[in-house]
Amino acid sequence: MNEKLTEQERATALAPLLAAGWQMVEGRDAITKTFTFPNFIDAFGWMTRVAIWAEKWNHHPEWFNVYKTVNVTLSSHDVDGLSERDVKLATKMDKLA
Amino acid sequence: MNEKLTEQERATALAPLLAAGWQMVEGRDAITKTFTFPNFIDAFGWMTRVAIWAEKWNHHPEWFNVYKTVNVTLSSHDVDGLSERDVKLATKMDKLA
Repeated sequence: MNEKLTEQERATALAPLLAAGWQMVEGRDAITKTFTFPNFIDAFGWMTRVAIWAEKWNHHPEWFNVYKTVNVTLSSHDVDGLSERDVKLATKMDKLA
Repeated sequence: MNEKLTEQERATALAPLLAAGWQMVEGRDAITKTFTFPNFIDAFGWMTRVAIWAEKWNHHPEWFNVYKTVNVTLSSHDVDGLSERDVKLATKMDKLA
């Protein structure tokens, strides 16, 4: 079962992401980050790699792309907030960027 | 040179798109449409095909994806409004969907 992050998990798992440029979304238990690439090929190439991981893990981002910029929001619908799956996908996104 | 669509071009080129589900964006010379697919693989697969055409034509969409839904907005920055390139990309998007 996927579960909402506890306060302790937020301190340990979420803190490194917030230090790496992720931010809490105003009024919602979600995190967001804007990734900027040299060009569209790099931006969409990154999205494609993330997309395959997302599908493999059955956890999909909300994302908005314009040319070389991708704004991502992560949250878990099934728990109505942040879960371990968001931490995992966010960490993967940072690694792939 | 890319140029803004004339009134006459809007009547001929834009009308079929508006009849096919594209809508004018409020307060902006742009068109938008939401595409819905059976699942994420189909949604992102479609985005990937569109992305390669977009790069080939050097005309990129603004698009937002959540799972099986993709909301697209098209406009041409260089002419600050709709151009023939938006009509071309919108038509291709419809064909590929």
